[in-house]
Amino acid sequence: MTLKVYLSGEIHTDWREQIIDGAKGLDVEFSAPVTDHDASDDCGVAILGAEADKFWHDHKGAKLNAIRTRKGIEDADVVVVRFGDKYKQWNAAFDAGYAAALGKSLIVLHGPDHQHALKEVDAAALAVAEDPAQVVQILRYVLTGELP
Amino acid sequence: MTLKVYLSGEIHTDWREQIIDGAKGLDVEFSAPVTDHDASDDCGVAILGAEADKFWHDHKGAKLNAIRTRKGIEDADVVVVRFGDKYKQWNAAFDAGYAAALGKSLIVLHGPDHQHALKEVDAAALAVAEDPAQVVQILRYVLTGELP
Amino acid sequence: MTLKVYLSGEIHTDWREQIIDGAKGLDVEFSAPVTDHDASDDCGVAILGAEADKFWHDHKGAKLNAIRTRKGIEDADVVVVRFGDKYKQWNAAFDAGYAAALGKSLIVLHGPDHQHALKEVDAAALAVAEDPAQVVQILRYVLTGELP
Amino acid sequence: MTLKVYLSGEIHTDWREQIIDGAKGLDVEFSAPVTDHDASDDCGVAILGAEADKFWHDHKGAKLNAIRTRKGIEDADVVVVRFGDKYKQWNAAFDAGYAAALGKSLIVLHGPDHQHALKEVDAAALAVAEDPAQVVQILRYVLTGELP
Amino acid sequence: MTLKVYLSGEIHTDWREQIIDGAKGLDVEFSAPVTDHDASDDCGVAILGAEADKFWHDHKGAKLNAIRTRKGIEDADVVVVRFGDKYKQWNAAFDAGYAAALGKSLIVLHGPDHQHALKEVDAAALAVAEDPAQVVQILRYVLTGELP
Amino acid sequence: MTLKVYLSGEIHTDWREQIIDGAKGLDVEFSAPVTDHDASDDCGVAILGAEADKFWHDHKGAKLNAIRTRKGIEDADVVVVRFGDKYKQWNAAFDAGYAAALGKSLIVLHGPDHQHALKEVDAAALAVAEDPAQVVQILRYVLTGELP
Amino acid sequence: MTLKVYLSGEIHTDWREQIIDGAKGLDVEFSAPVTDHDASDDCGVAILGAEADKFWHDHKGAKLNAIRTRKGIEDADVVVVRFGDKYKQWNAAFDAGYAAALGKSLIVLHGPDHQHALKEVDAAALAVAEDPAQVVQILRYVLTGELP
Amino acid sequence: MTLKVYLSGEIHTDWREQIIDGAKGLDVEFSAPVTDHDASDDCGVAILGAEADKFWHDHKGAKLNAIRTRKGIEDADVVVVRFGDKYKQWNAAFDAGYAAALGKSLIVLHGPDHQHALKEVDAAALAVAEDPAQVVQILRYVLTGELP
Repeated sequence: MTLKVYLSGEIHTDWREQIIDGAKGLDVEFSAPVTDHDASDDCGVAILGAEADKFWHDHKGAKLNAIRTRKGIEDADVVVVRFGDKYKQWNAAFDAGYAAALGKSLIVLHGPDHQHALKEVDAAALAVAEDPAQVVQILRYVLTGELP
Repeated sequence: MTLKVYLSGEIHTDWREQIIDGAKGLDVEFSAPVTDHDASDDCGVAILGAEADKFWHDHKGAKLNAIRTRKGIEDADVVVVRFGDKYKQWNAAFDAGYAAALGKSLIVLHGPDHQHALKEVDAAALAVAEDPAQVVQILRYVLTGELP
Repeated sequence: MTLKVYLSGEIHTDWREQIIDGAKGLDVEFSAPVTDHDASDDCGVAILGAEADKFWHDHKGAKLNAIRTRKGIEDADVVVVRFGDKYKQWNAAFDAGYAAALGKSLIVLHGPDHQHALKEVDAAALAVAEDPAQVVQILRYVLTGELP
Repeated sequence: MTLKVYLSGEIHTDWREQIIDGAKGLDVEFSAPVTDHDASDDCGVAILGAEADKFWHDHKGAKLNAIRTRKGIEDADVVVVRFGDKYKQWNAAFDAGYAAALGKSLIVLHGPDHQHALKEVDAAALAVAEDPAQVVQILRYVLTGELP
Repeated sequence: MTLKVYLSGEIHTDWREQIIDGAKGLDVEFSAPVTDHDASDDCGVAILGAEADKFWHDHKGAKLNAIRTRKGIEDADVVVVRFGDKYKQWNAAFDAGYAAALGKSLIVLHGPDHQHALKEVDAAALAVAEDPAQVVQILRYVLTGELP
Repeated sequence: MTLKVYLSGEIHTDWREQIIDGAKGLDVEFSAPVTDHDASDDCGVAILGAEADKFWHDHKGAKLNAIRTRKGIEDADVVVVRFGDKYKQWNAAFDAGYAAALGKSLIVLHGPDHQHALKEVDAAALAVAEDPAQVVQILRYVLTGELP
Repeated sequence: MTLKVYLSGEIHTDWREQIIDGAKGLDVEFSAPVTDHDASDDCGVAILGAEADKFWHDHKGAKLNAIRTRKGIEDADVVVVRFGDKYKQWNAAFDAGYAAALGKSLIVLHGPDHQHALKEVDAAALAVAEDPAQVVQILRYVLTGELP
Repeated sequence: MTLKVYLSGEIHTDWREQIIDGAKGLDVEFSAPVTDHDASDDCGVAILGAEADKFWHDHKGAKLNAIRTRKGIEDADVVVVRFGDKYKQWNAAFDAGYAAALGKSLIVLHGPDHQHALKEVDAAALAVAEDPAQVVQILRYVLTGELP
C-alpha cells in the first residue's frame, strides 16, 4: 500500500521537510504546493505577462498554482494542512474544505492557540496534531501498524 | 428558475439581511448557518452534554453545525462567502473550498484589504464583490438579465 | 429548508415515535424501514413464493426491504441509526456504513454500554446521542438555531 | 488483471493468513486493517495524547484507523468481510455497508449460526462463504476461470 | 415517500396497465417508453427526415427514444424490466444493465422459461417476479409495509 | 414527466421563441442564457466595476454569465444547442461539450452548411435538427409519443 | 497510451482470439469473462455448495461471474460487445447497458441480421462492426492513427 | 508527480511539437487526437464501410475519433486547447467544455484576435496563453516551481 500525501499550508517553516525526513523508509509519496513565496506570488505575470492591477496580478498566479494544488489534492489519499502562527492562511483552510468535500482523509496540524478558530476545520479531520513528528507517527501507524 | 443561495461566513454584521432584503421579489431561496454566536459555540454541549476539555466542547458544536452547513452548501446553486474585517474566519475559507470542490458557483465578498490574502479563494470564484448590494445585483442579473 | 431524516435500526422500542412526536412543527420529513418484524422477515416469500431453504427465504425478504432502505437513505439529509440493547443489529451498522459512504450526516443513538463496540460507527458520525429527545433537540437546532 | 482485495472484520483468528496463503501465485493485492488489537485500540492516544474520557480515547483511535480502512476499501475491487463467533463486530458490518454503497464486490464470510442476523448484509453481497478456502476458490475462479 | 418507477421492456401485452391499475392509491409516479411500436420505430425519420439505409432509419429513431428512456431511468427509484415471450428484447436487457450501473433498484419480470437465459440480469435485481400482480404487491409493501 | 430543456447558442434570431411557442401545452420548463447581447457583454463591469483591459472586462462578464449557464445546463434533461450563420459561436460548442460530459441529452440545431464543421458535436448528440419546428416535434414525441 | 478493452458477449466462436491476435503489437490490455461455458454455469455451486433449485444454482454462479465482469467493465476504456447468431444473449445486452451508463466507449459487433433488434444498443455505441478484423482496425486507428 | 496533458485543437501548425519538445526532461505524458486530417475525416468509412450520405460519412468518423479524444481528456490532468487562425474549430471548443465539466485544469492557447469570441472558454480556464512556449513554462513551473 502506497499512501499519497499532500502537504498543504504554511510555507515559512520546515515542517514539510520534517515530515518527509521522518517518513523515510515508509511507502509514502509526498506532494506539495510550490513553496518559494516569490515564485508563487509572481508566476502568473512572469509567464503570461504583466498586469497593471494587483488583483489580476494575483489572480493569474493563483490560477497557475491551482493547477498544481488541485492535482495534488485530487491524487492524494491523505491531505495534511498546516496552520502556522502568522498570516491569514485562508488558502490552507480552502484546501482543507476542498479535500473534505472530496472525501480525503484530513490531518490538521496546528498549535493550541488556534484551537477555537479552527474548530470547524478540525471537526472535518481524522486527526488533529500539534507537531510534525505526530504526523510521521500517524503515517507509520497507518502503513505498518507500529506505534511510537 | 429558482436559485438556491447559501450565505456563508461573517456573522457580526448585517450583510445577510442586506442581501435578503435586496433580493425581495427575486426567485431565490436563501439558507445560512446559525448566526447566533453563543448558540453556535455551545450547541454541542448544550444538547449532548458538557465536556471538560475545550477541544471536545468545540468539536461537538462544530459537528452539529456541520449538519446544517453541509446541507446548505450541497443544496445550493450559488455559495456566497463573506470575509469581514475581524477574526481568522477559517470556517469561511473552508466553506469556500468545500463549495468549490462540489462545483458550486462561488461569489466571494470582501473589502480591498483582504485582496492579496484571499487570492486563492478569489481565483476559484465566479465573482468577487465588495459590498452586499453587488451580490444582489448579480442575483438579479442571473435571474432576470437586468443590469443596475 | 426541509430536512429529510431516515430513522434506521432498532424496531422493538418506540424511539421513532418519540422523535417524530418531538419534532412536530419542525420542517422534517421522516422515513424509516418497515418496522413490523414479521412482515419484514417474510415479505419475500409472501410475495414471490415460498423457499425451502431458510437462507433464500431471508434473502428474498432482505432484498425487498433493501428497495425501501436504499431509497430512504439515498434521499435523506440526515440518517439516525439506533442501536438497542438486544440482538446483533448488523443491519443498523450496515446502514450506518452505507450512509457514511454517501456522505450523509450521521447521528448515532445508543446507550453508554455500547460505547466501545460502536467506536468506529461513532467516529463517522456528526453526533452521538443517548436518548431520542437529544435527536429532537439536534433537529430543532439545525433547523431553527434554538437550543433547549 | 490484478485484483485488489480488502480483508475486513474479525481479528482474533487466522482467516486472513489462510486466504493470503491460499492465494499465493494469484495476481491479488491484499490489504487489511491493523490487526493488533491493543495498537488498534490505543493508537489515537499513543500518538495524539491521552484522554481522560474513554469516549474520546476510542474516538481518536477509531479515526486514525479510518485513514487505513477507507484507503483499503476505496482502493479495493473486492471487499471480504468476516464475522466471527464473538463480539458485536459492528465495525465489520459498517465496512460492509460502506463497501456496498461504493459499489464494491462484496464477499461475506460467516458460519451458519449468523445467517438470519446477517441477511441484510448477505443480500448486498456477491458471495456468502463459510470458510476461507471458499474465498480463495472464488478469487482463483475470478482471476483464472479454474474451479476447485 | 413517492416512489418513481420506470416500466421498461415488452410493449405487446398490457402488463404496464395491470401494474398501474393495481397500484392505484399508492404514492407512485410511473414512467415508460413510448409503447406505440410503429411510432417508436419511425419517429426518427418522421421528424428528422427519411433515410435510404435501414440502419440509419433505425439509428435516428433509437436515439430519439433514448431521450425519453434515459430521463425515465435516471429519474427512477425503481426500474421494472419485463421480458415477454417473443422477440430478442435486447433493449430491455440494455435498460436493465443501464439501471444496474446507476444503482437503481431493479425488479425483473419474466416467466420461468427465461430463467436460465436471464440469470445475469436476475442476479443484479432486488426482485424477480413472474406476474405483474407481484410487482404491485412489492410496490405496496415497499410503500406501506402491507403484505398481500 | 416534466422535461427541463436548456436552449443554448445563437442569440440573434427568434429560434428560442419559436420553440417555446411551439411547445405550448407540453410539460416543458425552458431555461436559457441572457440573450440581451449588450447586457451579456457588459454585466461584469456594470456590477463589479470597470476594467481598463478588454480581456478582464470580458472575463468578469463571462463568469457572471457562467452562473446562469451552468445552473441551466446542470438542471436540464435536454440541452438544445443552436449554431447560426454568423460569428464563431465557440460558447455554443463549449456548452455542447459541457452538456455531453454531464450525460445530458443533446439536440443540435444547425443548417446544412455547418454539417462538416460540426461533425464532432453532432456525433455526441441524440438528434441533429435543421429548424426549430423539428425540435418542438421531438419534445412532443418524447413527452407524448405523438408524431407530426 | 494503453487502451484497456473488455470483450463481452458470445462465448461460442473465436472472435476474442481473432481480436487479441490481430492487436498484437498494439498497446492494449484485454480482459473478458470466463468463457468456459460449464465453469461459468456451475461456478457458484462448485465453490459455495449445491442448490436444489435451478434458480439459485444459476443465481450463485451469475453473482460470482459478476465479480469479474464488473471489474472488467469498470476498468475498461473500451467495451466491445459481440452478439452471435444463437441464444438470447441478454447478458451481452446487459453489459452494453452497464457500460453505456458508465460512459465507456462502446463497440458493438454483430451481423446484419440483428441490425433492427439491436438498434437501441447500436445507438449507444461509438462503432458498430460486423467482423472482428474491423475491431482490430479501430483499435489500431485509435492508438496509432493508421488506417487499413 | 507525473502530469498527464492532452493537447486538443488546431492540427495545421506545429504547436504540439513545440510544446512536446520544450517539455523534454519534464515528467509529462502527452496525448492528442489523430492529427492526420485525411485519416481523421475518413477513418469511419475506411474501417466500417462507405456511406452515400456525407452526414453519416462524417458521423462514423467523428465517433471513432471520440474513442481517442474521450480517453485522452478523461485521463488528463491538464487539457490544453489551441485555437488557430482558420476554420470554425467547434471541436476544440467542444473539448474545452467537456474538459471543464469534468473539472480538468484547462489552458487555452490563442492569439489576441480571438479574445472576445473566446471569452466564455477563457473564463473556464486556469491559464490563457498566446504561444506554445508559455504553455511549456507553465508545465515547468507546475512541476518544478521554476520560473522562466
